[in-house]
Amino acid sequence: MPSALLTDLYELTMAAGYVAAGKHTERATFELFLRRLPRNRKFAIAAGLPQAVEYLLNLRFTGEEIDYLRRLPRLAHARPEFWEILRDFRFTGDVWAVPEGTVLFAGEPFLTLRAPIIEAQIPETFLLATISFQTMIASKAARIVDAACGRSVVEFGTRRAHSPEAGVLAARASYIGGCLGTSNVEAGFRYGIPVYGTAAHSWVQAFDNELESFRCLQSLLGESTVYLVDTYDPVEGTKKAASLGSPLWGVRLDSGNLVELSREARRILDQAGLKDAKIMVSGDLNEYKILEMMAAGLPIDALGVGTDLATSADAPNMSAVYKLVEREVGGKKRFAAKFSEDKQTLPGAKQIFRFPDRDLVGYVTECPTCDEEGAPQPDPLLRPVIVGGVQVGALPDAHTAREHARENLSRLPKVIRSLYDEEHSYRVEYSAELWRLYEDLLEQYEGQPS
Amino acid sequence: MPSALLTDLYELTMAAGYVAAGKHTERATFELFLRRLPRNRKFAIAAGLPQAVEYLLNLRFTGEEIDYLRRLPRLAHARPEFWEILRDFRFTGDVWAVPEGTVLFAGEPFLTLRAPIIEAQIPETFLLATISFQTMIASKAARIVDAACGRSVVEFGTRRAHSPEAGVLAARASYIGGCLGTSNVEAGFRYGIPVYGTAAHSWVQAFDNELESFRCLQSLLGESTVYLVDTYDPVEGTKKAASLGSPLWGVRLDSGNLVELSREARRILDQAGLKDAKIMVSGDLNEYKILEMMAAGLPIDALGVGTDLATSADAPNMSAVYKLVEREVGGKKRFAAKFSEDKQTLPGAKQIFRFPDRDLVGYVTECPTCDEEGAPQPDPLLRPVIVGGVQVGALPDAHTAREHARENLSRLPKVIRSLYDEEHSYRVEYSAELWRLYEDLLEQYEGQPS
Repeated sequence: MPSALLTDLYELTMAAGYVAAGKHTERATFELFLRRLPRNRKFAIAAGLPQAVEYLLNLRFTGEEIDYLRRLPRLAHARPEFWEILRDFRFTGDVWAVPEGTVLFAGEPFLTLRAPIIEAQIPETFLLATISFQTMIASKAARIVDAACGRSVVEFGTRRAHSPEAGVLAARASYIGGCLGTSNVEAGFRYGIPVYGTAAHSWVQAFDNELESFRCLQSLLGESTVYLVDTYDPVEGTKKAASLGSPLWGVRLDSGNLVELSREARRILDQAGLKDAKIMVSGDLNEYKILEMMAAGLPIDALGVGTDLATSADAPNMSAVYKLVEREVGGKKRFAAKFSEDKQTLPGAKQIFRFPDRDLVGYVTECPTCDEEGAPQPDPLLRPVIVGGVQVGALPDAHTAREHARENLSRLPKVIRSLYDEEHSYRVEYSAELWRLYEDLLEQYEGQPS
Repeated sequence: MPSALLTDLYELTMAAGYVAAGKHTERATFELFLRRLPRNRKFAIAAGLPQAVEYLLNLRFTGEEIDYLRRLPRLAHARPEFWEILRDFRFTGDVWAVPEGTVLFAGEPFLTLRAPIIEAQIPETFLLATISFQTMIASKAARIVDAACGRSVVEFGTRRAHSPEAGVLAARASYIGGCLGTSNVEAGFRYGIPVYGTAAHSWVQAFDNELESFRCLQSLLGESTVYLVDTYDPVEGTKKAASLGSPLWGVRLDSGNLVELSREARRILDQAGLKDAKIMVSGDLNEYKILEMMAAGLPIDALGVGTDLATSADAPNMSAVYKLVEREVGGKKRFAAKFSEDKQTLPGAKQIFRFPDRDLVGYVTECPTCDEEGAPQPDPLLRPVIVGGVQVGALPDAHTAREHARENLSRLPKVIRSLYDEEHSYRVEYSAELWRLYEDLLEQYEGQPS
């Protein structure tokens, strides 16, 4: 279980402040959303919810952790009551969220959390890191899988991920985004994701000659055998692999000019009568390189994508934020917004309604107006996940999330899935009611004495 | 403790293969190094060693993990002996490494691991992910701290890190790279790193008016109070903060035009007689923006850097590799190299000797020749950390590593620390002996029947 200290200090300083101000039991609603999509991303795929829920349901402070906090200068003036509250801390609030695999856009809440403000504030940092990372990787994976035009893509990136644990989560998110599986064994163990992998260059180097290493691999793996042929010379390596005949799955090329080498490898395998043997490529691939290879009609059957996928290298972070949108004081709603330059937030708890060609983000109790009479009302995307600190049913697993993403993606206009189009974006509208709440708050603020 | 399954499947497939081939007890030496430095990086700062050592010393397979592995198709033909070996798995080898905080360059080993090949192969994935991530962040931090020209830099990036755990390790690495501290409480708890943080926008929004929120913060934090002034209007916010007088630490600006706002905030604070009050800035900062602010002489006392630092946004991965360089068969050394295009590796276990103006990477038993007669022999940088599976003394903590990095950086030529220079790089030479070993192997390979 992740430690309760896995948060920013200011969450705890504020928590102590809410207690000092007698505000800690006031209910507050926060929303987690992307302020904007990064360059090269026209959609996001929601991922990371089970890790967020598991964290919230198990959030506790140990005695040792509290002792550490008591020694921090910034908490030196916290009220005695604050320490008691931490000792007995439980998350008792509500969480609504979109199912994992849902395609989302900037400004749309992934998750809405309503709880006494102290319980809503402390989880901010963890929720942001866990959801935004997996969401980022899932959408990167979808781009790569799209570029591969139906070829299998396996995620290979743990060694380059931002820590080993990030590698496990990247594997999970890549699977949700459409990868066939991962090389990460822990991801297979924890989440039931298919795992792949046969041998590295060190396998070849551990033998006195390459052919001997290949023969030994074949006797171990049979028809799963994938020969990594480029340790010394990829053409010679492929010839050696071909000379061993069946059984084999195929060969992997991990360096060099893949345009020439994949064609040459195909020729060598075909000439050896190994028409069913497959060619896998890997080595610093990304969606742009893959698209080019597919457009060239290269004889490639499968792709291993590591570094660029597991680190979302072209867009390695997302502007995910977690913002207070309303609170309840003495049974009355108070809306909250930010007016900061380029960082405004709209007040009010929101709901997302998806029409065939656009999304409407409205105030949570709004019922969307339909364009056509008799048209079906769209289902709201945010659904209850935790109510009163208790989980509402089991969450869908990674397989279901992957299927949900596939279905969501299939309904996106083609141009939104384009890697190169920069003109079009999916239409997301905010209801007039939300804008009215914002204007009201701005007016109210400007009326305050400075 | 991290799971033993936190590895790529091919490490385990190979492990099973080594057992099948009767090679698993042959001693092998692997080196972990950067194939090249990423763009915008002219040096790396070694970090992550304690996490690597902790992992190696505790690497065990549980019964449940072995049961999972037994069900994998790719391990279906593993010998019964393989499962016994996994059950009793312990790391019994040797690790030599450079101390954390050491400045290193492409091709120089961070870590050399010598063990029975099965024990050396399985840890590859974990070692790469843990060392390359922290190393990447430490060097990013050093660039940012350099750009800040002596102002304090605090790491704020956990929410944007690649998972919460990556946030903790990013905080640690940032500290080693020169940051004053972090917002990440867990990093403070685990590693004794100074933690900072006061309040977010939600604090201001949780009150009916901004002034009330500031007053409450001041009564809680006294002279540690940092007012976040840009929730609504940064100039008005600063005036409200100033109106409360002492005690305070200062104000934080998190959005808008920091050139104008920092000067305006300084004027407001000075006019209120708060000459000692400080100004902190934050919000999507990086080394280039900071350098510009410092060159403009802005009245900025401290900087909070999050997203770009914790994700090393301009260079979000490093080409760290872990390569077999030699092995021992029947008491005899066999050298190993790779000839792959653009991915060659030099054979032989290496040592790094640092001269005042250059590094010499030589075969491990080589004694460097000095340029001048009587000049002192440089100390070898790689030192024993684990011998025969047992740790050799305690590792230096994060504070010592930070001091070591500071000292190492101070000896680098200024041009190597420049953010913009693209012409110069630090001089690293490989000994003639290493090249000779490579040529020998190439000749040997080319002499093999194909």
